[in-house]
Amino acid sequence: MLKILIPIALMLTHAISQAGGEFRHVVMFKFKDNATPEQIAAVEKAFGQLPGKIDTIKAYEWGKSESIEGKNDGFTHCFFVTFKDKAGLETYIPHPAHVAFKDILIPILDKALVFDYTAKD
Amino acid sequence: MLKILIPIALMLTHAISQAGGEFRHVVMFKFKDNATPEQIAAVEKAFGQLPGKIDTIKAYEWGKSESIEGKNDGFTHCFFVTFKDKAGLETYIPHPAHVAFKDILIPILDKALVFDYTAKD
Repeated sequence: MLKILIPIALMLTHAISQAGGEFRHVVMFKFKDNATPEQIAAVEKAFGQLPGKIDTIKAYEWGKSESIEGKNDGFTHCFFVTFKDKAGLETYIPHPAHVAFKDILIPILDKALVFDYTAKD
Repeated sequence: MLKILIPIALMLTHAISQAGGEFRHVVMFKFKDNATPEQIAAVEKAFGQLPGKIDTIKAYEWGKSESIEGKNDGFTHCFFVTFKDKAGLETYIPHPAHVAFKDILIPILDKALVFDYTAKD
């Protein structure tokens, strides 16, 4: 059995871990100095709910800055959103759930940076 | 056989696609206006060789800006490097291969942004 399963497992691992043309939407935020921890937590929660509301989102993860080199230009949060292709992002941007998310974000946002790319090896 | 393989495949897919605490190193570059296409291609190639030289790199992908919203602050290139943990990045930063890469990069670099985070769902 292992003779069959191990090659299959390796094939799957390879297929998924390799960059296969997914469309990546990298979003960074720096919040205003007067943003409260509760307001920031509300943004984190609301962003995390978008994958359940917008079906062109294929993968989602996020994290807070753990900079070693100090080159993060004040950004504290990074959200990494994956679409199948650029059309997925084009659906996402005007989607009502995304627009509603921005209503929560904008009042406490100092600055944002967004970088979109098609993943290559 | 399918009764066995399908659940295994689903488990593997889930395990790999979910954010599982990987340490992400997001690097963006804007090159100087006088950087030549050949110099930029050399940086792209040299960065792509680092995963073969530094074994704490667990995954690597990159892409050029395909911004829709124009919020990429002039950055044209994004490199997305994954380590098992923060210690992997700490090994990478002073590694001779990384230092040698910077010798190729710095002469044509206008600005860089680096964001490090532990991936969460």
